[in-house]
Amino acid sequence: MEFQKCNEIKVLRDPVNGYVHVELQVIWDCINSSWFQRLRRIRQLGGACMVYHCAEHSRFSHSLGVYEIVRRMTEEVPDIRSALSDYEKVLAMAAGLLHDLGHGPYSHAFEFVTETAHEVYTCRILEGDTDVHDILEHACPGLAKDVADVIRHDYRNPLIGQMISSQLDADRMDYLIRDAYFTGTKYGEFDRERILRTLRVREGQLVIKQSGVYAVENYIMARYHMYWQIYYHPVARSYERVLLALFRRLRDLHRLLDDSLSFLNPLIMGEDIPLPVYFRMDEHSFSYAFLCLCEHEDAIVSDLARRIRDRRLFEYIDADDENRETVYENLIKAGYDPRYFWRTDGVMQIPYVPYQEEEGNAIWVSMKNGEIREVSDASSIVHSLIHGESHDDNKVFFPDCGGNEK
Amino acid sequence: MEFQKCNEIKVLRDPVNGYVHVELQVIWDCINSSWFQRLRRIRQLGGACMVYHCAEHSRFSHSLGVYEIVRRMTEEVPDIRSALSDYEKVLAMAAGLLHDLGHGPYSHAFEFVTETAHEVYTCRILEGDTDVHDILEHACPGLAKDVADVIRHDYRNPLIGQMISSQLDADRMDYLIRDAYFTGTKYGEFDRERILRTLRVREGQLVIKQSGVYAVENYIMARYHMYWQIYYHPVARSYERVLLALFRRLRDLHRLLDDSLSFLNPLIMGEDIPLPVYFRMDEHSFSYAFLCLCEHEDAIVSDLARRIRDRRLFEYIDADDENRETVYENLIKAGYDPRYFWRTDGVMQIPYVPYQEEEGNAIWVSMKNGEIREVSDASSIVHSLIHGESHDDNKVFFPDCGGNEK
Amino acid sequence: MEFQKCNEIKVLRDPVNGYVHVELQVIWDCINSSWFQRLRRIRQLGGACMVYHCAEHSRFSHSLGVYEIVRRMTEEVPDIRSALSDYEKVLAMAAGLLHDLGHGPYSHAFEFVTETAHEVYTCRILEGDTDVHDILEHACPGLAKDVADVIRHDYRNPLIGQMISSQLDADRMDYLIRDAYFTGTKYGEFDRERILRTLRVREGQLVIKQSGVYAVENYIMARYHMYWQIYYHPVARSYERVLLALFRRLRDLHRLLDDSLSFLNPLIMGEDIPLPVYFRMDEHSFSYAFLCLCEHEDAIVSDLARRIRDRRLFEYIDADDENRETVYENLIKAGYDPRYFWRTDGVMQIPYVPYQEEEGNAIWVSMKNGEIREVSDASSIVHSLIHGESHDDNKVFFPDCGGNEK
Amino acid sequence: MEFQKCNEIKVLRDPVNGYVHVELQVIWDCINSSWFQRLRRIRQLGGACMVYHCAEHSRFSHSLGVYEIVRRMTEEVPDIRSALSDYEKVLAMAAGLLHDLGHGPYSHAFEFVTETAHEVYTCRILEGDTDVHDILEHACPGLAKDVADVIRHDYRNPLIGQMISSQLDADRMDYLIRDAYFTGTKYGEFDRERILRTLRVREGQLVIKQSGVYAVENYIMARYHMYWQIYYHPVARSYERVLLALFRRLRDLHRLLDDSLSFLNPLIMGEDIPLPVYFRMDEHSFSYAFLCLCEHEDAIVSDLARRIRDRRLFEYIDADDENRETVYENLIKAGYDPRYFWRTDGVMQIPYVPYQEEEGNAIWVSMKNGEIREVSDASSIVHSLIHGESHDDNKVFFPDCGGNEK
Repeated sequence: MEFQKCNEIKVLRDPVNGYVHVELQVIWDCINSSWFQRLRRIRQLGGACMVYHCAEHSRFSHSLGVYEIVRRMTEEVPDIRSALSDYEKVLAMAAGLLHDLGHGPYSHAFEFVTETAHEVYTCRILEGDTDVHDILEHACPGLAKDVADVIRHDYRNPLIGQMISSQLDADRMDYLIRDAYFTGTKYGEFDRERILRTLRVREGQLVIKQSGVYAVENYIMARYHMYWQIYYHPVARSYERVLLALFRRLRDLHRLLDDSLSFLNPLIMGEDIPLPVYFRMDEHSFSYAFLCLCEHEDAIVSDLARRIRDRRLFEYIDADDENRETVYENLIKAGYDPRYFWRTDGVMQIPYVPYQEEEGNAIWVSMKNGEIREVSDASSIVHSLIHGESHDDNKVFFPDCGGNEK
Repeated sequence: MEFQKCNEIKVLRDPVNGYVHVELQVIWDCINSSWFQRLRRIRQLGGACMVYHCAEHSRFSHSLGVYEIVRRMTEEVPDIRSALSDYEKVLAMAAGLLHDLGHGPYSHAFEFVTETAHEVYTCRILEGDTDVHDILEHACPGLAKDVADVIRHDYRNPLIGQMISSQLDADRMDYLIRDAYFTGTKYGEFDRERILRTLRVREGQLVIKQSGVYAVENYIMARYHMYWQIYYHPVARSYERVLLALFRRLRDLHRLLDDSLSFLNPLIMGEDIPLPVYFRMDEHSFSYAFLCLCEHEDAIVSDLARRIRDRRLFEYIDADDENRETVYENLIKAGYDPRYFWRTDGVMQIPYVPYQEEEGNAIWVSMKNGEIREVSDASSIVHSLIHGESHDDNKVFFPDCGGNEK
Repeated sequence: MEFQKCNEIKVLRDPVNGYVHVELQVIWDCINSSWFQRLRRIRQLGGACMVYHCAEHSRFSHSLGVYEIVRRMTEEVPDIRSALSDYEKVLAMAAGLLHDLGHGPYSHAFEFVTETAHEVYTCRILEGDTDVHDILEHACPGLAKDVADVIRHDYRNPLIGQMISSQLDADRMDYLIRDAYFTGTKYGEFDRERILRTLRVREGQLVIKQSGVYAVENYIMARYHMYWQIYYHPVARSYERVLLALFRRLRDLHRLLDDSLSFLNPLIMGEDIPLPVYFRMDEHSFSYAFLCLCEHEDAIVSDLARRIRDRRLFEYIDADDENRETVYENLIKAGYDPRYFWRTDGVMQIPYVPYQEEEGNAIWVSMKNGEIREVSDASSIVHSLIHGESHDDNKVFFPDCGGNEK
Repeated sequence: MEFQKCNEIKVLRDPVNGYVHVELQVIWDCINSSWFQRLRRIRQLGGACMVYHCAEHSRFSHSLGVYEIVRRMTEEVPDIRSALSDYEKVLAMAAGLLHDLGHGPYSHAFEFVTETAHEVYTCRILEGDTDVHDILEHACPGLAKDVADVIRHDYRNPLIGQMISSQLDADRMDYLIRDAYFTGTKYGEFDRERILRTLRVREGQLVIKQSGVYAVENYIMARYHMYWQIYYHPVARSYERVLLALFRRLRDLHRLLDDSLSFLNPLIMGEDIPLPVYFRMDEHSFSYAFLCLCEHEDAIVSDLARRIRDRRLFEYIDADDENRETVYENLIKAGYDPRYFWRTDGVMQIPYVPYQEEEGNAIWVSMKNGEIREVSDASSIVHSLIHGESHDDNKVFFPDCGGNEK
């Protein structure tokens, strides 16, 4: 199978990767498909731009970044270059590019509302009646299903799945550094070049050479700090609490929205979302819907929509705060319905979880003496970390009832 | 007049400025107003993200950056610190923050459609029935009008206007570096710290010390290269040509859009846009409208809307290309209406234009001997540049009629 | 006590700190003293530039960096600003600037040869007959002794000592980032600005606010990785082994060097080094001496000197390598004297050592509830790390006896 | 001719180039030769570290950088890859690596004293009885002479010479960015990746594609600003004036230095310097010599040497300063001998000089239509610059005679 090349190699400037190089027509066509362009309308970090105002980057640019790292792996890591057939290299690049296709607006909040992981939609898009499906099948019959199989971790060569989604995958290698770049923090920086240079394949499995263990320790810490400083930042979670409260209220009202906003109805009714409707669900249409909902006749809906519009987010306290009861009483006195205005949220993050009979769950190290060890057996730092207590954070979110604005 | 301080200084992480510091309640309240939050929904660089995929940053983050530079000027440039009263310092910061409030979606294309400069809307918002107006007036009666006067270059102390909008203003000092950061190019970098350190006030006028002339030369070149590499990139212009063609077609149809998209009607009808409707006009609502318009019954409208959705932009040739006629004939043969599908665009940029009896138009240098000279008299580099020929670029844009896609 | 200001503030460009600002004449005079200028001739990272070829920066630039961070602490950290008198601020800045004055060439190897910590020489220089002593005393009688007292951790206000030398001092805040910059690695980067912003003084002690704990975790890991990747790199240690072997041989020969190299004699003889001789001991004079010693009549001296000249360093194996005996036998067979050509070296590094009744030994955190806790009680990450096993590395170094060159 | 490869590719971390990759044994052996290691003892920017204190990087790291860029050219620029034979690729890399071998301490000042360009010594070292000569000849007989021919612009394929030394060569591509990195300025940054990507070979000549002209404009300005801000900085020139005055005085004394410093005698006597003596002439031995000369019996010698030691450099005024005569009179009154203490220096820099029948002198552009034009015909910016007046700076340097210290 020969894949057609672009008549000229495309080179896209990317501050995080230098350049993104596109040589194959099928990749270029996927990029220009309406489903992939839709990712421009879904930001990478839902509510985090309420705290880090420059974190406005989209899943579009992240997906290009993942593609580029996969492409580099297939060219620059000798073990991968020889472990994959030409077809599998294209498959890996396509899977890297398209892995986030199924994300909805405000990614994780949306998964919560639909009770469906985004990978499910990614596969439905890849295998459904979509332009991106046609492009893949046109390039090589069967490619669309194979990409979906990689996403589902079902593809016969598990190495490709590990490149796209595992503890040391192209996905994380792009997003940690990208999110650090766009938030302006330093926490997410680690020595990606070193990791790429020490990647090896042993028994069909992605491993790291022992001399790269420091870079892995560094990466594990970077990931851990990014979670607490960015992804789990209370203000980002507050924003998502308001979003979720709004959807809960809309659902509880059992009332269909009129035609301007009718694309939201399957979501509100908890029904399955057909692909053409899913296509319309992006942060632009949602954002416009929130503006319209500021005038909704239900006071709770309009209150919540205005909070989104004006960034008047919920306050928060620790779940075990001693003033919790007083705060709750004030909220009730102020007339707020706690189903929507008293929302708890707990997050937990462990720097690294060792191997537990679950695929893709561990980082493996190829020691100097040829042995393969789990990284927590190869690094005293990681070994310490897995025996520490986990770090969690449980909070209650609620509207300000008269205190000072944050 | 004492302005109230926030109960704790707010510090926002910004990759371009390090941090943005907010100490005054009035500034913090303006940031959290619905009109300012609206700027999150208007990107800084309309069509440029069709070429530089990471250029997804908004006028919201740019405006915070301009505010921060103005704030630093009022604190760190001794001449400015002593030339401005306390009130004027707040006025300058507010004007820096709010100067872009009136931008519409796809800024410059929008100005073209409405035939109205964005500053006009900025002033209408500042002086109209808006939350940002109320916040300013609540902080100090008259402040809203004074901010508008600064924007109109009508304020009695012209120094403030120069800080916000002139050839060496906080606006450019932020956007060149910010746009370089988010596109990932190096062209926009110049030594901003050196310029800030060599800013002086002479006879009520912002000037640069002679020892900063190198940094100014550097800045002039950075600006010039940013125009040609980013702002005037043909693909960005192609995107805007499609947008303009779509609006032209909608206007020519003389048909009102139904209620879901009715907020667009004043724009289509060329009528004055009331502020509540203007508020709804942002890139999120427009982007959603374009998705809806893909199903419009008019074939030209739906063709153009789909081009936007799928990034199938117009091809382009130089206006004096020898094949121009052939291309035109092919277009006609293919059945395209040239009113919408044959669009010319010319841009022109001169590195620096010297003083011409127009305020704010020149960069002044305070020489070692005390003299004040125009920079083209103080720098042999700039002197050369103003005598060179201007650089222009005239192109025709049109749909691909069967050739290879770019 | 009023300290005289420079007639114009001096601003030195520094890639790691942006700028170094000098406002006080006494600081400027210290910088231009011959003893401080001598630090230009002593690199920050002895042998590391044998691995990281760009690590050629000197203790001169590092010392300016430490001064700048101390200066910023005294101005930008409100608790420090109010905890120190004006005199103590100058004292702190002078101590930051001068803390490395007593370093000899190839710092740590030199300490090993002289069996004297560099701080001892720093104090001797500060209190001896030197230009830097005179400058300090001229600015304020008693200042020289006070600076020395700060270095000795004897000054009455221990806060100043903590700013200069503790687990979170200006010294480490400069060198980790500086060494990362000049080696081109990323390991040493941490969020210094965050640490500076969360520094507080509680009961006369430097502490960090709880919200800065993440930055401290980051810093601890950065430090740990810098040790293993840079400071303890085997090639750097190999270089130092050759140096030490050379000095050992010179000492064992009991032979004075002739007048060109006579300044080395006190070192060779293990005698006390008078300040005027110490002044001449820098990496330039040593480097010249090594060139001369390539022609020394003793074969071992000339062999070792040539190894330094030509970067033919020692090979190394782990101290418990199974081939150790074979290697040793080959060495003996090849005629090498093991006193000089079989050198062991062990290094050990623990990410963080908790409080053990020793001053300055711990990092303290001011919790939200007002409590002061040790960082290993405030961070689950640090808590894990102190219970992990320590990481050590014991190696034997020896010349290549016929194997392949590295 | 097959060149031997290293048993493992060597990868050296370099902050300016990411990594330097060494695959060929001959290159690795050259790097470890004593003559190449000598470049560690010669800084890249003589006196500039008197102003930019971090500019302590050596010609060693610069030379590695030039090698790396040449290596990338031979691999990544398709036209070069196909224009050069395998032998010529190695030749180009070796020439890039070794081009600065003949530099003496304080490079340009040394050329002034010896009245010999450093290329002359580079060729003498390459063709003389040196380890680097033997390594080259051992790898391939004739290689040493060919490298020297490239340096002399005498090699039969002029393309190689252009890669090493022309207006767009690897030398400048490394040093501008390197010097900017180590000084901490931004002036030297330009888009090197863009230039590398648009390099082409036309009729055996290195040219740039028209689409790279912006990057060339950028580069020309970067170079211009680096000259004025760094290389021609008056303080750097002042340092060199003191050095030159010291050598002039030593020469005028007609007195041989005793054996410790006897290696300086050929220089002082204006005699030819044999290679073994030249080898010893580096900034370490000179720096040590200056310390010794502080005690020289001639008062002028010791005064000048102390100025170097303590950074008490010369003051300066413009050559046409109106106070020139007064300053001169004060100098004489103060008893200074104007032969050594009144030194003029003029520098001149033009952003770009167009083609003037001299090889290597111009930058050529391959236009879209296939034409080859000189860059001043292809860029209106460059066209303007060549018609501007040149910028020069003539100064007189002299000791402070009682005025304020700078």
